[in-house]
Amino acid sequence: MEQEKINLFLSKLAGIADNVNHYLDKWLPQNEEDYSANLNEAMRYSVMAGGKRIRPALTVLVAEGLGFKGEAVYRAGCAYELFHSASLIHDDLPCMDDDDLRRGKPTSHKVFGEATAVLAGDSLMLMPYEWFGKLAEYGVSYEKIVKIMNIANEAFTYRGVIGGQMLDLKYENKKIDQETLERIHMGKTAALLGAPILTGAVLADANEEELDCLKIYSKKIGLLFQIIDDILDIESDAATLGKNIGRDVALGKSTYPALLGLEGAKDYAKKTYEEAISAIKPLSERLSDLESLALYLLKRKS
Amino acid sequence: MEQEKINLFLSKLAGIADNVNHYLDKWLPQNEEDYSANLNEAMRYSVMAGGKRIRPALTVLVAEGLGFKGEAVYRAGCAYELFHSASLIHDDLPCMDDDDLRRGKPTSHKVFGEATAVLAGDSLMLMPYEWFGKLAEYGVSYEKIVKIMNIANEAFTYRGVIGGQMLDLKYENKKIDQETLERIHMGKTAALLGAPILTGAVLADANEEELDCLKIYSKKIGLLFQIIDDILDIESDAATLGKNIGRDVALGKSTYPALLGLEGAKDYAKKTYEEAISAIKPLSERLSDLESLALYLLKRKS
Repeated sequence: MEQEKINLFLSKLAGIADNVNHYLDKWLPQNEEDYSANLNEAMRYSVMAGGKRIRPALTVLVAEGLGFKGEAVYRAGCAYELFHSASLIHDDLPCMDDDDLRRGKPTSHKVFGEATAVLAGDSLMLMPYEWFGKLAEYGVSYEKIVKIMNIANEAFTYRGVIGGQMLDLKYENKKIDQETLERIHMGKTAALLGAPILTGAVLADANEEELDCLKIYSKKIGLLFQIIDDILDIESDAATLGKNIGRDVALGKSTYPALLGLEGAKDYAKKTYEEAISAIKPLSERLSDLESLALYLLKRKS
Repeated sequence: MEQEKINLFLSKLAGIADNVNHYLDKWLPQNEEDYSANLNEAMRYSVMAGGKRIRPALTVLVAEGLGFKGEAVYRAGCAYELFHSASLIHDDLPCMDDDDLRRGKPTSHKVFGEATAVLAGDSLMLMPYEWFGKLAEYGVSYEKIVKIMNIANEAFTYRGVIGGQMLDLKYENKKIDQETLERIHMGKTAALLGAPILTGAVLADANEEELDCLKIYSKKIGLLFQIIDDILDIESDAATLGKNIGRDVALGKSTYPALLGLEGAKDYAKKTYEEAISAIKPLSERLSDLESLALYLLKRKS
């Protein structure tokens, strides 16, 4: 029953991801169309590298669940995928996490050089606002566009993803308490799940109470995602390497199992899941997909 | 007469710069107010490092010249100073121009490390959209806010500053023709002079013909700025070092004197100045400051 619900949700998600890939390919600047060809090539390389497209999918699931359909939903949702790719390009830079591979492919700075990677990230961070501006072409009101711009900005900048990344660097290899850990995850993960959800809701004319429910839900699933990530990290290492310690723990990163113990972390995940479900109770008929998403995040094995 | 006009303009510019500095200090996030303290410190360090504040001043001169006054003008204009600082932080990175000093002070990555410099640049690139969003608090219509967002985006991203920087890197140490050189300058310099001008005009309800005049003017003064920069580079080296070759030429960078000869470059500057003045003829009574700016750019000695 639960697994069936999850499978249905995942197959819906895959269908949306196909559409997202189609639109991203269509809307990203062509390599040949513009004088900034290297830049366009580097932007495409990272954005088209795949992934579940969960962020744009959230905009689609929420907007469509609340009764608003059409290309505008994809235009707004895909903007978050641009930003997500941008933040990964910068995170992978030698001066940040110094990663050579991302989804099995060489990272941007490995392929195009560091300077181009910095610029491709910059450009992809800014392009969401171009795409939000284009919502007017679909008849989305200027008021809604400004609302979406504000939602996105709060998720992106020093109050969101960039702030979370800064905090993460600051506390690297340092012991931190649960409050600080949660602030990092709110910035690095939850902010960029919440913004696409709220964007879908704004497109579909959600009222303030509905937006408040969705804000709480977003924070809870961001947290849930991270707790489970920490747990899987430990359990998969234990299973595959026969040792009882996770990579993050070994790297000196603070994790929920390290803070709460493995069982404590599992209880915390369950509690967080229940809080997510409870937050969107008033919307559960129209947004049952969000219930499935929370269930999937709780039960996932990888 | 000409010098008097220039002096009057420069003293007006200095007065506006004082206001800009006041507002930047007031509106930038405080170091203590937010969990992302390092980031805020790094953002402030670069933004508050001084400079003529020419970009915000352009918004103020145009908006006020066309009859629109108030704090909203500074909110919109200062947003361009944030982006300008951001692009300098990233340009100075070791993987880009690798500069240790900027306006006589150590560059961001020298003070805060590369990772923080990347993130401070990211955050400052995104913050203009937060400040544009705040224009609604001053009663600026949502339609105007979206227009300004689109103007800014075109100036910032792969079609503007970032694209120009990419092109500059691509052709470093390569011989290029005048058309390519001008594309680089349009992106790197003219775009970020034009956007604040158009923003001031939009705030003041300029019509499409007026906007078109200002677009041409912006391109011409961007170009003029660059031609004179190239000429000064050669002449100051000749004067102070007793040699007849400029730093840019020595570095293998294409310059107007290299392409057109010194006299040819001077003629081109004069012609470009006249085109700038002629473009804003219909607005010359209300925007005489823009005439003075063009004159100043033509006559400046440093």
